[in-house]
Parts: sequence; C-alpha cells; structure tokens
Amino acid sequence: MKPKLQWIEGGGATSAAGWLASGVAAGLKADRDDMAILCSDRPASCAALFTSNNVPAAPVQYDRPLAAKGRCRAAVVNVGCANACTGKAGYADTVATGKAAAAALGLPVEEILVCSTGTIGRRLPMDRILKGVRLAAKALSPDGGAKAAAAIMTTDTKPKQAAASFPLAGGRVTVGGMCKGSGMICPNLATTLIFLTTDAKVSPANLRRALKLAVAKSFNRVTVDGDQSTNDTCALFANGAAGLPALAPGRPGWDAFVATLSAVALSLAKQIVMDGEGATKFVTCAVQGAASAADAYAAARTIANSPLFKAACFGGDPNWGRVICAVGNSGAKCAELRTRIFFDDVCVYDRGRIASAAVNARLAAVMKQRAFEVRVDLGMGRFSDAVYTSDLSHGYVSINADYTT
Amino acid sequence: MKPKLQWIEGGGATSAAGWLASGVAAGLKADRDDMAILCSDRPASCAALFTSNNVPAAPVQYDRPLAAKGRCRAAVVNVGCANACTGKAGYADTVATGKAAAAALGLPVEEILVCSTGTIGRRLPMDRILKGVRLAAKALSPDGGAKAAAAIMTTDTKPKQAAASFPLAGGRVTVGGMCKGSGMICPNLATTLIFLTTDAKVSPANLRRALKLAVAKSFNRVTVDGDQSTNDTCALFANGAAGLPALAPGRPGWDAFVATLSAVALSLAKQIVMDGEGATKFVTCAVQGAASAADAYAAARTIANSPLFKAACFGGDPNWGRVICAVGNSGAKCAELRTRIFFDDVCVYDRGRIASAAVNARLAAVMKQRAFEVRVDLGMGRFSDAVYTSDLSHGYVSINADYTT
Repeated sequence: MKPKLQWIEGGGATSAAGWLASGVAAGLKADRDDMAILCSDRPASCAALFTSNNVPAAPVQYDRPLAAKGRCRAAVVNVGCANACTGKAGYADTVATGKAAAAALGLPVEEILVCSTGTIGRRLPMDRILKGVRLAAKALSPDGGAKAAAAIMTTDTKPKQAAASFPLAGGRVTVGGMCKGSGMICPNLATTLIFLTTDAKVSPANLRRALKLAVAKSFNRVTVDGDQSTNDTCALFANGAAGLPALAPGRPGWDAFVATLSAVALSLAKQIVMDGEGATKFVTCAVQGAASAADAYAAARTIANSPLFKAACFGGDPNWGRVICAVGNSGAKCAELRTRIFFDDVCVYDRGRIASAAVNARLAAVMKQRAFEVRVDLGMGRFSDAVYTSDLSHGYVSINADYTT
Repeated sequence: MKPKLQWIEGGGATSAAGWLASGVAAGLKADRDDMAILCSDRPASCAALFTSNNVPAAPVQYDRPLAAKGRCRAAVVNVGCANACTGKAGYADTVATGKAAAAALGLPVEEILVCSTGTIGRRLPMDRILKGVRLAAKALSPDGGAKAAAAIMTTDTKPKQAAASFPLAGGRVTVGGMCKGSGMICPNLATTLIFLTTDAKVSPANLRRALKLAVAKSFNRVTVDGDQSTNDTCALFANGAAGLPALAPGRPGWDAFVATLSAVALSLAKQIVMDGEGATKFVTCAVQGAASAADAYAAARTIANSPLFKAACFGGDPNWGRVICAVGNSGAKCAELRTRIFFDDVCVYDRGRIASAAVNARLAAVMKQRAFEVRVDLGMGRFSDAVYTSDLSHGYVSINADYTT
C-alpha cells in the first residue's frame, strides 16, 4: 500500500510544526558552522537508537537513559570531536554541555540530548562548546533546519535533509529530518547522527515501534565501509503540534505515519551513501529468490561490503565474479547452477551460462552511470532485500589516510 | 618449547627429498610462466583444506574427494582463469586437465590435484592448458621449486616460498612450501593456493591433524581485504623420502614436525600480507588481556579488517581511535577504562588517559616503518592472539578497479 505522502522540496528537521533549529560557528572547525541545536517549542515525546559498539562515546552513555524516559524535546550537537574514550572527564564535559543547554533554552536538563561527532580520543574544548551552546540557543528559528543540517556535517560534502507529509483527519502530519555521515558507515542499528522530527502526537512506546520499523529498511540497509562508530545516534521526536489525534497501531493514520517516516529515513540513508567518503557511484545491491529473509539480507550485505566489488564499481568494471564470490561467502543458501546476476536489466550470468561478449557494450553503459543496481536472483525461494553502497575509490583512501594528523 | 628448526635459505616446495616441480609458459598470460606441476618421485600421503565459499570452483569440487582419500602426490596448477562458475562444462575441463596430467606423469589420475586461480566466470582455454600440462611434466626438476612458485603468481609481485628442517633419529626431516595470494585474502580456513611438502612419513589422518594446527595460526591469521575466494586450497603432501620412522602424535619428532610446519606456514602467510595488493605496510594487530580466546581473535581480526584503520596505516596516521572503535565493534568484552593501546612500544591510550603530545615524534617514527605492531591490552583476562594485515592504499584501489576489463 503506497502512502499518500507528499515530499516537501528543501524540507528538513524544521518542516514539521513547532520545530526550531540553528547552526552556528563555535570555533571547533575553521570558517564554518560546527554546532547545532534542534528544539521543539512545546514538550515532545522521543525514541532513540544508539550504536551497539562496546566502547560508546560519553554522549551516548549520557543520552541512553534520558531517551529511554521518552520525554526529550531538544538535541545539542557538536562536530570536530567525538568525546569518545575520554574517560570520566569526558563524561563530565557532556554533563556540563547538557546543563549549559538547559540554562540557555530554559528547559529541564532531562529534555535535552547531547550529541558529538568527530575524532575519537580527544577532549571537547569546553570554552568553545559553552559559547556555541549560547549562540545556538539564541539563533533558533523555524527556518533553521538547513543551517543545522550544514552545521552537523563532518567529512560530508553535502547537508542531508528530507521531509514529507500525509493527510490525517482533515489536517496534515509532517515528518522531517536531517543527518550526517559519510565514512564509518555500516548497516547496524543507527548510523552516525540522525534527527527525525514530527508534529504528530505519538507516545514514546509507539514512537519507538515506528522508529525501529523505519530504520530496519533505511539506515540498516546502507554501508560505506562496514565500520560502526562509537557515536551512532538516531533520535525521533514528536511534539503533537499538528493538533491531530494521537497516532497508534491500529488507529487511522498509523500506517501512513510509518510509511512516511520510512520514506524520509530512506531518503536520508541514501543521501549518506551518495555522499560516502570518496564515493563516485551509488550501487543498489539487490537480492531476490532467497530461501529466507536472513539469507537475502546476508547476501546483499556481503556484496555491498566487498572491497573487491566496490573497487570494481569505481573502475566501471562489471566484475560479476566478485558478486557471486561474495554471495558464496555470505553463508546464504546458493548454488552456481541456480543463480542469475543482472547489472540493471543486463543479465551477465544465468544459472551456469556466462553472457556473451555481445552484452559488453550495454554493460559498459550501465557501469558508467552515477547510480546502478546489481541484482542477484538466488533461485532458492521467495525472499528479497537490498543494501545500498558506494564504490571504493582513491578518494576514500585519501580522506582516511590523513584524518587526525 | 622452541623446535630446533633450521631455515633453508631460498628453500621452497622442492627442498624436501623426492620432490620435483616445474613452471612453464602455456600462453595463459603474456610473457611469463603460468602453469606449474609439483610432484613426488614416489607415492605420498596428503591432506588438504578448501574454501568454505558456497560457490566453490570446479577444481575445488574435483579435488575435495580426491584429497579425502589421502593418497595424492602431485598438483597441476594454472593461473589466469579460476574455472569458477563455469557449470558442468567447466567441471569437465578440470577432469580433462587431470587426465592429461596423469598421462604425462604416468600416474593414476586419483593421485593428482588440479588447481586453478584467476578470473571467475571464464572457461579454461583447454588447448593451451593441455599443452602446458605436457610442457610442465617434461620440465619437472628437483630444483624446480622457485620456478613453480613464480609460475603460480597472479597479482603477486613476488614468489612466495619457505623451507626448514629439523633433526630426527640421526637424520633430518624437511618441510617446504610455496603459495600465491595477494588480494581476496581473509582469515578463514585456507587462503588462495598453498602447497606444502615434506619428506617425513606421516599418515593422511595425522597429516590432516598437523595441517589444521599449522593453518590455525598462519593462513587463518592473515587478511588483506576480508574476501574469501572460490578457489582457496591448502594442500600438504608427505612422501617419506627422508627414510625415517613415521611421525605421529606422542612419538618422537611429532612436536618438532608440527612446529616446523607451522613456522613454514607462518612465513608463507606473512609473505602473502607483505605482498598484499597495493600494500606499503605490514601491520601486526595483536590483542592481549582478552576474556576468552574467541574475544582475542575477534578483536584482532576486526582491527585488521577495518578499512578506516588500514587507510590510516597507509597515511602513517596513528589513529588509535579507529583501533578502539574496531575493538568495540568486534563483540569482544571490553571497557574504555580498562583498555591500553600501543604502537610498537609507544603507549597512546592508557585506561582513559590519552597520551600527551610529547609522544607524537616517537609515534611518527613507528608509523614510518615498513612493518609495525598495534597492540591492544583489553585488561579483561589472559587470552591473546594476533592477525597480520596490510594497509589500504591507492594501489589496492587501482589494482582492483580494473581487473577483468
């Protein structure tokens, strides 16, 4: 069932009613905005998912119990420093940031998430952070979504925003969001920093249900390099400012809400891959005909994470041998004589038969595109899945060869 | 207990008594040798490990039952074409290659393994293969180890050989070997093509025991890019030509045999990493203080496979944040305030305390070396492990961006 969702051109985290945001320069990065605040003008419910890395950053340790209460309405974000592996002193820095934001916003400290991203193992420059918090609180605006999205960028080359709305009970519900992420991206729980906002009224428990559904097929289906960061946070806030009845499973509008939230999340997730470190291609790794859902996901993810396949994509080389090799490694049930492989609509391998040289011109045209799909039909069952990835380029190596020094 | 092993300078697969080898040009590659035969001058026992990829190449399907009988004494190898995903016709090509080798060598077909490596999804050029088999059989020589090692190279830039001996009952037992491998290397069972020979007398069952022990800490502890190929084969042959009593667990010489075999295997495995595609660095990823052996291995492997850490190694960037991030992702039990990280002897992170800027000059010197160690002490227990990896360089991307086309 397709939702009647309507995309909002240029929309983002402040597209929904009652949401304010700002982006300011606190001096953490040279010549650009580097701190942001996102805030609702009224109380909100929230749900959040965090990295499953066993060495979570101080802000993740701090946010987890706050988000679990389901009553946050704001987030303060800095780039340039992840505040990870900074011990008790680093945790105290996060607490101090939260307190400063509470004072500047006139809100209870429990309603504010604190998020950091950047280099691991460095202390936050607290004088700049505290100045940034005050500046960002003053700059809050209902038009601030784009500025906030730009301020939370790290190695991103483009800000990432999306928003859409759907009709409900004579009114409209809007869902918007922003995120940052370019490297250290892998499909496991949340990825980097993601903020989703809505003016729907939704309880924290139902918000969590919707968020898990939306993330499963969006942020959990993208990969750049298979590394999961210490700071991954995905937060969804709902402030009810649309003035419409509460949404809940089984009630009118719930399915449309989940579909719209999922569409916004998928748009943001795809923007992350498009802007993957050094990425020159956007590759959809689709698997169909799998014997189980787990097999479909495993096969798609293994193709998407294969450095050999990703390097071949960079070179425009339709090296399907690396695709079937990855499928064979994934643990998914498969057999050489049942497998078919396509690049877009061009079949390169059909159950033991290798495509003739005649398709090479068509293949070259497919591989030259900015975006294409590799599709594997395992011929084993009825399950399918897709994971989105970028290519492995010289740009990726250059960016990561010299990040901290 | 250190074995009394003696390395044989320039030794390889024909260092042990009774072993012959050859490398010849069959026209599969331009201007270089591309086929090899390794053969014992008398019957031998054998054991072999193969890829666990679910899409094994035709030669792997063919060799598995032969090797299981434990009575092979020879291997015929081609490069340039993996004969993988080639269906029934590809399997028939492998059978024909085995038959031709049997005729040329005057041996039962059951005593000859057939191995291929190269591009997936292409048929073997059988006219050239059959010519190569005849040439290689004629060229067999007790001095042919080096020529065979060179002939089985693919993207390798250097042939890989090693041999060592140890004293036994007034005589000496020699173990030698050769392998090829540069990309698509990951620590799972065997890796690429590896041939180990000895003049010891060992039953097939005991040979298999020794091989598993040796591979566990050598070929299963190296990674270049985490991809496992369709053709991985690791074969160990024993012909008893040293004229000494049979080796078996609990009997004299068994421990020295396993130690020597392990040392030769580790030497070959390290040569693979040193010659990893595009590699400019050899990095030992060591973990100690782990709560379990599984934790130690998982943490070491996750560091060694992190593209972010590997790119940092290429850039000479001592980015320990990526090391602890990888450890956190590995699933190993760990805590920020118990972990210590070293680059060689320089401590960069000590249980919550970040090294001062004063160590930077020493760190830079460590990272400039061709080979260095990153060591993580988890402070959780008494288990340790190490995985060997190369850096992720522009060279890796260039080699793999344009491999088939």
